[in-house]
Amino acid sequence: MHEVPSAAYSLRVQFVGVTREASDLRLALVTAGMRVEERAAPDGFTRQWTIECPDESALERAELHVRSQLGSGLRSVSDQVLELHRGGKIRTQPVRPIRSGADLALAYTPGAGRVASLIERNPERARDLTTMGSTVAVISDGTSVLGLGRLTPTAALPVVEGKAMLYHSLAGLNAVPLVVAVHSADDFVNTVASIAGTFAAIHLEDIAAPRCFVIEQGLIAQLTIPVLHDNQHATAIAVLAGLTNALRVVDKQLDTARIVIAGAGAAGTATARLLLHAGAKDIVVVDRRGVLTRDLTDSHPFHHVELAQSTNPRGARGDLSAAVEQSDVFIGLSAPRTLWPEMVASMRPDPIVFALANPVPEIDPTEIADVAAVVATGSSEHPNQLNNALVFPGLMRGLIEHHVRTLTPDISVAVADALAEHATPKLSAVHILPDIFDRELVGLIGSVLEYAHLAGDREPHPAIAR
Amino acid sequence: MHEVPSAAYSLRVQFVGVTREASDLRLALVTAGMRVEERAAPDGFTRQWTIECPDESALERAELHVRSQLGSGLRSVSDQVLELHRGGKIRTQPVRPIRSGADLALAYTPGAGRVASLIERNPERARDLTTMGSTVAVISDGTSVLGLGRLTPTAALPVVEGKAMLYHSLAGLNAVPLVVAVHSADDFVNTVASIAGTFAAIHLEDIAAPRCFVIEQGLIAQLTIPVLHDNQHATAIAVLAGLTNALRVVDKQLDTARIVIAGAGAAGTATARLLLHAGAKDIVVVDRRGVLTRDLTDSHPFHHVELAQSTNPRGARGDLSAAVEQSDVFIGLSAPRTLWPEMVASMRPDPIVFALANPVPEIDPTEIADVAAVVATGSSEHPNQLNNALVFPGLMRGLIEHHVRTLTPDISVAVADALAEHATPKLSAVHILPDIFDRELVGLIGSVLEYAHLAGDREPHPAIAR
Repeated sequence: MHEVPSAAYSLRVQFVGVTREASDLRLALVTAGMRVEERAAPDGFTRQWTIECPDESALERAELHVRSQLGSGLRSVSDQVLELHRGGKIRTQPVRPIRSGADLALAYTPGAGRVASLIERNPERARDLTTMGSTVAVISDGTSVLGLGRLTPTAALPVVEGKAMLYHSLAGLNAVPLVVAVHSADDFVNTVASIAGTFAAIHLEDIAAPRCFVIEQGLIAQLTIPVLHDNQHATAIAVLAGLTNALRVVDKQLDTARIVIAGAGAAGTATARLLLHAGAKDIVVVDRRGVLTRDLTDSHPFHHVELAQSTNPRGARGDLSAAVEQSDVFIGLSAPRTLWPEMVASMRPDPIVFALANPVPEIDPTEIADVAAVVATGSSEHPNQLNNALVFPGLMRGLIEHHVRTLTPDISVAVADALAEHATPKLSAVHILPDIFDRELVGLIGSVLEYAHLAGDREPHPAIAR
Repeated sequence: MHEVPSAAYSLRVQFVGVTREASDLRLALVTAGMRVEERAAPDGFTRQWTIECPDESALERAELHVRSQLGSGLRSVSDQVLELHRGGKIRTQPVRPIRSGADLALAYTPGAGRVASLIERNPERARDLTTMGSTVAVISDGTSVLGLGRLTPTAALPVVEGKAMLYHSLAGLNAVPLVVAVHSADDFVNTVASIAGTFAAIHLEDIAAPRCFVIEQGLIAQLTIPVLHDNQHATAIAVLAGLTNALRVVDKQLDTARIVIAGAGAAGTATARLLLHAGAKDIVVVDRRGVLTRDLTDSHPFHHVELAQSTNPRGARGDLSAAVEQSDVFIGLSAPRTLWPEMVASMRPDPIVFALANPVPEIDPTEIADVAAVVATGSSEHPNQLNNALVFPGLMRGLIEHHVRTLTPDISVAVADALAEHATPKLSAVHILPDIFDRELVGLIGSVLEYAHLAGDREPHPAIAR
């Protein structure tokens, strides 16, 4: 179940006549928690509704009602999400069409041959004379898609296409969605390394832990271009930025705050690591089986054992509700509806709750409005939207433009600080982060990357030929 | 050296004042075989020239002269090819920009998650709900780039970008350029097979023989989407179409014509195979070492030994000039300036010469204007442009739309026939082929593919999940 009516579960309905049936239906839909907006259709007599529903099953009910009650008057019903996805969400456009022999001579042969020879003599020229200088590959294997778990690679395509759209819309980068069907992490690394000469950077998306760590490290070792696993690093940076300001709001300190992280996958692990690097001292990580303790056996994945070594200084044990008691901060990177209002009530005064599971958060923010001091979710439907999209477009563009090959923890902290700082002029419990669509974000993050070399993180121009 | 001034070797020059110097320079450039066009610049007092040169060295000389003689009046000089290639020739555009939380909800989460779930339950839906239904991967390893030979994979990028532009401009398909850096043909196959779930079809480009045969067969065996090695099949089809009409012009028959094919790489081999399938009986293939004869040793690559078995029925021996003597048709898919007017003069009456090496043909058509009955080249600067671009956009679109997984020799012959037929209303020695930019070509080839199932070549919808 989703919380509030959303464009993601919406129908567009066109109909004529049936005025009484329509007003009865509209009342019924609104009563059932849906949002109905009417717009004038261009022809002046057709009526057009957009019906937003809170979830998939409400959407199905709405469509059933529309079809049965508007009957003969109905002209069309379309699912807005399917409509947008029809034919895919990306197009590859030539910078100009090829319409004549002269165009062909410039863009193909002999023109492209001249450019090929130039690049052969001087590989650096590929950066300005081909798309490889500005194109990000957005790659998934479908092993951990959004909140849906493991899917086939092709099922991950709408997600990586969405990321590619965001790169273009928010950072002006070209991005090519790719899905990879392989068994082992090594095969993934070899496949991506083989095609990496096409791209300025590699964005890894929705890859399950622990293979995401092996894949990311393997690619970083083999390639000379930036490699970024979004679910790890962009999430961790966004959380640190949000937490920095949330702590300011409640006047607490990172190094003394008791922090519980629910979820020990790619995002939870990277977030715990980055918060530690930023100065947090008291983090307790909880997975499905309970708190990660230092006596974890080998039946746990290696990254859990490793995490357990660097967290849980007070030797907490037990389940999530035990961990959350008397804590200051809950960071949910786990699963829908796993936190309850009573658990939030058991936290220390002015609790901070980041319920970031997507699309359905760990707890409905409206249920803890009176208890929690600061609440953030991944959704645009509540205050404090904490989403990777705050980070990855500007981060990737900055890495590419300033030839920073490796995203270090220091750079991550600096980016998080800059984001937090950018939100402070309007800082409040319902405004701890910049808006995702703030046009200054890309430049802001870029300037952090520009100065990254001061910390010794800058590389010379990566060699392109491999 | 290139033959005539071309847009591919052109400068755009802007200058003010220096009127006398400019007219002197213009005269000198035109005298040196360059083409100078003057256009009014938008501001009304700057003058703008486009200088087209016949080749790279002329281009360099022209730039030197421009810089020294226009001196203080010079405002800018730009190489038109480099200008077009700046930043690459392709952009990946979202179908609409993401500008708000509602856009994000539709295109990313939870919207894209709904589509991912749909595809997970029904893999066929990926064809209409993602770009995979209409996106061609254009892939090269750089082992045989245009007429340039083996380059680094990244140096092949301007070429595959050019092909991607052509797919969009001529057939309305999305195309993603990719370069692959691998050692073995098997590694190439495995890499491409791993990412094939992203695409509607695989276009292989500029891969050297014999690895191109291994790669193509390996991919066809593993994948359920069309795989097309352009240099082989689109070339062979275009040659067969052109030859069909050239033979009509001189009133000769395919099954009695003596045909010499110069070049036994990907294009030469595929062309020989297709002409044999279409009914040619007397083909002699010549490579750098001379005529392929039936007693070829194992020091020759396997495809040469195989070709030799099915060609050369009269047991010809020797070099190209021996082979060409008393032949009817010369098909050059080899190297610049390897055919001489005397060799054409030694052919039977009404010789047909296809000099298709790119960018510099086996012989300058103007040198044999009096001797040859029909001449074709790959260039738009002469009559009878015989280029893959006649074939691959429509062929690939037809394969995808009509779910034809395997391009059979019968389909290839049918496509060639259709192209030849389409050119017959205006048939003459200087018009044996349709124009590449003829807007009917894609539909024409599509209709051939639509009926391909009559010959048993139609497959059910390819399964998408692998």
